[in-house]
Amino acid sequence: MDLHSLAERMSGRAARYDAAGAFPEEDFDDLREAGLLGLMAPPHLGGAGASFAEYTDVAMRLGSGAGATALIFNMHASVTGALASTPDELVRQFGGTESFFTFRDRVLKAAAEGALYAVAMSEPGIGSRLSQVRTSYERTGSGFRIDGAKTFVSGAGHADAYLVAARDRHSDEPRISYFLVPAGPGVEVRPVWDSLGMRATASHDLHLGVEVGEDALVGGIEGAALVLAQVMPQWLVASYAAVYVGVAQAVLRHGAEHLRERGLHALPMVRARLGRADVQVAAAELVVRKAAALVTDDPGSPETNRWVWRAKLIAGDTAAQVAFSVLEAAGASATRRGHPLERLYRDARCGALQPATSDVCADWLGASALGENPDEARW
Amino acid sequence: MDLHSLAERMSGRAARYDAAGAFPEEDFDDLREAGLLGLMAPPHLGGAGASFAEYTDVAMRLGSGAGATALIFNMHASVTGALASTPDELVRQFGGTESFFTFRDRVLKAAAEGALYAVAMSEPGIGSRLSQVRTSYERTGSGFRIDGAKTFVSGAGHADAYLVAARDRHSDEPRISYFLVPAGPGVEVRPVWDSLGMRATASHDLHLGVEVGEDALVGGIEGAALVLAQVMPQWLVASYAAVYVGVAQAVLRHGAEHLRERGLHALPMVRARLGRADVQVAAAELVVRKAAALVTDDPGSPETNRWVWRAKLIAGDTAAQVAFSVLEAAGASATRRGHPLERLYRDARCGALQPATSDVCADWLGASALGENPDEARW
Amino acid sequence: MDLHSLAERMSGRAARYDAAGAFPEEDFDDLREAGLLGLMAPPHLGGAGASFAEYTDVAMRLGSGAGATALIFNMHASVTGALASTPDELVRQFGGTESFFTFRDRVLKAAAEGALYAVAMSEPGIGSRLSQVRTSYERTGSGFRIDGAKTFVSGAGHADAYLVAARDRHSDEPRISYFLVPAGPGVEVRPVWDSLGMRATASHDLHLGVEVGEDALVGGIEGAALVLAQVMPQWLVASYAAVYVGVAQAVLRHGAEHLRERGLHALPMVRARLGRADVQVAAAELVVRKAAALVTDDPGSPETNRWVWRAKLIAGDTAAQVAFSVLEAAGASATRRGHPLERLYRDARCGALQPATSDVCADWLGASALGENPDEARW
Amino acid sequence: MDLHSLAERMSGRAARYDAAGAFPEEDFDDLREAGLLGLMAPPHLGGAGASFAEYTDVAMRLGSGAGATALIFNMHASVTGALASTPDELVRQFGGTESFFTFRDRVLKAAAEGALYAVAMSEPGIGSRLSQVRTSYERTGSGFRIDGAKTFVSGAGHADAYLVAARDRHSDEPRISYFLVPAGPGVEVRPVWDSLGMRATASHDLHLGVEVGEDALVGGIEGAALVLAQVMPQWLVASYAAVYVGVAQAVLRHGAEHLRERGLHALPMVRARLGRADVQVAAAELVVRKAAALVTDDPGSPETNRWVWRAKLIAGDTAAQVAFSVLEAAGASATRRGHPLERLYRDARCGALQPATSDVCADWLGASALGENPDEARW
Repeated sequence: MDLHSLAERMSGRAARYDAAGAFPEEDFDDLREAGLLGLMAPPHLGGAGASFAEYTDVAMRLGSGAGATALIFNMHASVTGALASTPDELVRQFGGTESFFTFRDRVLKAAAEGALYAVAMSEPGIGSRLSQVRTSYERTGSGFRIDGAKTFVSGAGHADAYLVAARDRHSDEPRISYFLVPAGPGVEVRPVWDSLGMRATASHDLHLGVEVGEDALVGGIEGAALVLAQVMPQWLVASYAAVYVGVAQAVLRHGAEHLRERGLHALPMVRARLGRADVQVAAAELVVRKAAALVTDDPGSPETNRWVWRAKLIAGDTAAQVAFSVLEAAGASATRRGHPLERLYRDARCGALQPATSDVCADWLGASALGENPDEARW
Repeated sequence: MDLHSLAERMSGRAARYDAAGAFPEEDFDDLREAGLLGLMAPPHLGGAGASFAEYTDVAMRLGSGAGATALIFNMHASVTGALASTPDELVRQFGGTESFFTFRDRVLKAAAEGALYAVAMSEPGIGSRLSQVRTSYERTGSGFRIDGAKTFVSGAGHADAYLVAARDRHSDEPRISYFLVPAGPGVEVRPVWDSLGMRATASHDLHLGVEVGEDALVGGIEGAALVLAQVMPQWLVASYAAVYVGVAQAVLRHGAEHLRERGLHALPMVRARLGRADVQVAAAELVVRKAAALVTDDPGSPETNRWVWRAKLIAGDTAAQVAFSVLEAAGASATRRGHPLERLYRDARCGALQPATSDVCADWLGASALGENPDEARW
Repeated sequence: MDLHSLAERMSGRAARYDAAGAFPEEDFDDLREAGLLGLMAPPHLGGAGASFAEYTDVAMRLGSGAGATALIFNMHASVTGALASTPDELVRQFGGTESFFTFRDRVLKAAAEGALYAVAMSEPGIGSRLSQVRTSYERTGSGFRIDGAKTFVSGAGHADAYLVAARDRHSDEPRISYFLVPAGPGVEVRPVWDSLGMRATASHDLHLGVEVGEDALVGGIEGAALVLAQVMPQWLVASYAAVYVGVAQAVLRHGAEHLRERGLHALPMVRARLGRADVQVAAAELVVRKAAALVTDDPGSPETNRWVWRAKLIAGDTAAQVAFSVLEAAGASATRRGHPLERLYRDARCGALQPATSDVCADWLGASALGENPDEARW
Repeated sequence: MDLHSLAERMSGRAARYDAAGAFPEEDFDDLREAGLLGLMAPPHLGGAGASFAEYTDVAMRLGSGAGATALIFNMHASVTGALASTPDELVRQFGGTESFFTFRDRVLKAAAEGALYAVAMSEPGIGSRLSQVRTSYERTGSGFRIDGAKTFVSGAGHADAYLVAARDRHSDEPRISYFLVPAGPGVEVRPVWDSLGMRATASHDLHLGVEVGEDALVGGIEGAALVLAQVMPQWLVASYAAVYVGVAQAVLRHGAEHLRERGLHALPMVRARLGRADVQVAAAELVVRKAAALVTDDPGSPETNRWVWRAKLIAGDTAAQVAFSVLEAAGASATRRGHPLERLYRDARCGALQPATSDVCADWLGASALGENPDEARW
């Protein structure tokens, strides 16, 4: 099934999953069948070996079909994509050995075979500031013991494993490591997710009290989390961006359709609202694609990172603003539940609030434009 | 019970009625008990004899407690308030006789005793353009036969009678009359209301196929609907305005509370968002109160009407904008269903979309500022 | 001459003074002749004894005629108004004696007879943060020696005396006092003012190296400057506000005139822009008048001060925004120098930049809404 | 001299030419010397044979140095670029013969040798609606007689020839033709240009009462003006866009420099303003470059034209908005005449007002998004 058809099928189901606040099972059946869970895995492990730019294209199309589904997919792509693209030199520079490569291949191969990964990073009260993580771990004889609680874990209850950030509870300075914790006993999903928008992401809480083996430590390297955030901000900052551009495109598409059906297309204010929304969305798409191309061609450079932050800011703001304006053009009849614009209005508001929030992005970009080091004390 | 306590009780129930999309029974029990259904009825009929300015104050306070309840109340106040304030000269000028005054007293006395009225004006595809009404009536031996369908009838299923706009089906030119149709057989509520915001207004569809007596014709006068819209635009254009200022005030109150609880009050962008929201809401309140004072003191003058349209525009836009910005300041934790800001974000978007929409108000005010007749071809 | 005629005459001269960047001599001849320099002086000293609310009305009307003239007038009114309204208890609380009252009467009587006062507060690099003032003074045998440099002194070269803030150069902690320094030797005007907007205010630099008598110390009290800023913020924060509302009103008036002349009044976008500008200006006027009424009736209360900051914020922002939008509606033909909208576009941008700037006001209001002490560390 | 150095030199002179409202002679000496007047002429005629995309890059860089100079250059590039890129088939389709190619080569060769062309299209009261042109022509024995008046002729008095749109005064239906009228007797420049911004463009009025030879008729084809506007909208709609992106970039550059110098870079609101401006400008640049690439690769297609209108809208709006916000961040000290931000604030406001205005672009794009023919009745 091509991406266009897949997005259309997802679009047709979105109202139902939104109403129920349920994980979009059928969408993931389709994604799995289309081989998209292996999108970021290299061909020799059975994947498609996609670049960040290719991922961005996929995420945008999926987002224009069903934003929530695309967000869950984005988390899976973040885990697999970050693993697949971590430069070997960086691994070795941080003391990584062959065990890293074994780990990576195992995880990516499983993804290509249909495994779904989720990210468990946020915690209550700290947002996604990695350095403040309270979930902790300690070594046991056979591996690690991890205890803590996570929020906003998209796909919770449906993932095969969770990427968990935790701090070494015996270290004085912040030493944050990543673990890939398999679903199962000790990993308890609390179904609290019941949200304004993006309701079908199943972003529930996760309570952890679990022992894992040595091979759950990502790459066999402790303390690498903070540095990864700085060298590959695209996965923490801007991978959502493509999804929200997709959401904004859906606003335009459903808005135009509604306005034609209602015979409102000749009203000057309606045309002006749609015309201004059109250029905003077109611009946001270009910024996100530019960022994606740079991440692909020149990952980690200051210029690339600037575009990554720009992408996150413009995608979140644009989606929210065009949904706000186009719903106003569409009028009260489009606020009925089940109408795509009603859902999109709620979904679209969420992007600017996801980390890095728009206000944080603006600060980062302002600091950068003023010649300061914008990453200082950021994570 | 004073208004402040009443609004607090309503606020405490709002999340529940919003979730269920149910008519707020308990709120109306309280309103009835507090004598507020007779707010607009004159004292000699058992009411409080409130002016438009006094109504505005009540509606604002109720709106800051529970917007949906305040909107239903507003419809009831529109019916009773318009009747109570129709100038006697105007009645006689349009051929009204003693029957008008009998009708009026009967209706207002019932309100003071607890009767609830609703408004059935909008129809699918015509919005609230009175001159386009398709619901029709004809004389029968004993009164009138009314047939048609109405949408957005707030309080449907819970009102004792409905104010229905209908056209004379045997007249060549548009002859629109008002009827007060009692609930009962022939007045069928279709429970379709399931909306983005203001979910507890029970604004269902109404299907009419009913015979009513002579005394259901409002004031015994046919064809008065259009002229009333022009001489008393406050009830069609700006009575909602106070409700949405109340909603905007609730956004500030709940926003400040959330931000303090989360310890976000020291963040400069949070303070800036709240500070700008504060002045917007303060300004909107002044405009709505100014309009209300002029309606009370100098009803129907060009200057008064200008303020009426300003009130509608600024109230709807302000509520939507501050909800948008304050939710962004509050962050993802405030988007959980049940959080007041989550509900307010949806409720607040509805004001600018209710007739007269913000875009229509802006056009009216622009035409007026340019020295044209803004009412031309408006209804 | 009534205020309306006076404002019209000023409006007719504004383009000329703007082009030349020259002090509006004729405007001040008219203001003097109309007795308006004594507006704030009490009747027993020959003045009009105006309240802050009455001042606000005058400033708004003058501002709608010629913004620059109204700004100079505002500085004069600040000096005379603050003196006239300083509560006697406050004077005594800070050790003031009869000398204060003698000083006050002398200054106000002179104003009523036509003396013009200016304010010399800002300094390069410190904006108007009083506590950072570098201009210093020391006692001499016969009075005080004052040295330093001031910027943005509206009316410089045309005032009879300057209200100068200076610090005691022998005090370890910041001890800021006010002096009323007569024009003359040692008070040198450097004609550097050549600005984007408000070009006719003659807001030149002032270089001070001057000895003044004992009676130049305002009220005979040292160290009172900071506390005055907090108890009477209206004169430091919001007295400009009325002027910028006047400027915004002029934008509407000249905009509507231009659009009618050009036959653009039927264009929907033009009407929408003007309609939205109309309600913004109406709202700003109400906020400024509300603040003025509270300053008059309940000076210094927390509620009053909140409205004072709101007034400054909304007036500056509204003027700039409506000038921006209405000029766009008017089109390229209105950008020709000499066209009132061209000047107003430049004048209107200045309000939000004058202290307290809009960003500072938003922070103050946000802190206040969050329950903090917004004055902490503000001056 | 490379483009970067050239733009820097222009930037250094911009304040002076702005103050005088004078044609930037030295800038054009440099442009001529650098061979840039032949930018659009093909190599075999001595030019650089630049594509629209290459032109866009040059215009953006020049615009970031001196907006007014870049605008004059843009008009010259429009004349030479449109000629160079008119498809031969189109010429023949409209009855063009060898005389067209002779004309074209003569004009482009002269440009490569340093001739400067200007555009005389707008007329008082009709803006740039070609179909409303009142300047008229008639055949004489030896060529044509042209009479009329033009406004906003950038470069007037300094161009070697003017591209004039005129109507056949003996034709009943609108038959608009282009002439290239040499400077000289009968072509009178009235130096009325004295504008808010872009003051150095010398966009004076032109009064025409002149006889020209046969070879002045562009391409030897009558009546081709309207169709050209539709097939090559880039030259009428979006060639300015690159200039205003350059202006917006200059706002960022000078803004950051000013804020660092003043030590304001640590203020959160300053950083937020600059960060948001940064992403707006980055997005506008991408849209303009995308439009330029499409014009180069796929001229005249519906998709290309959509990007052309988007480019004009976003460039004009972005320049105005970032200048508005960054000046507010920079504060009163940046409003002194001679400060680059003061000039840029005025220059930047002009883009959205130049045809096609932003409101017209929004309408075009809205109509297009709604599936209508946006060109209908547009010119």
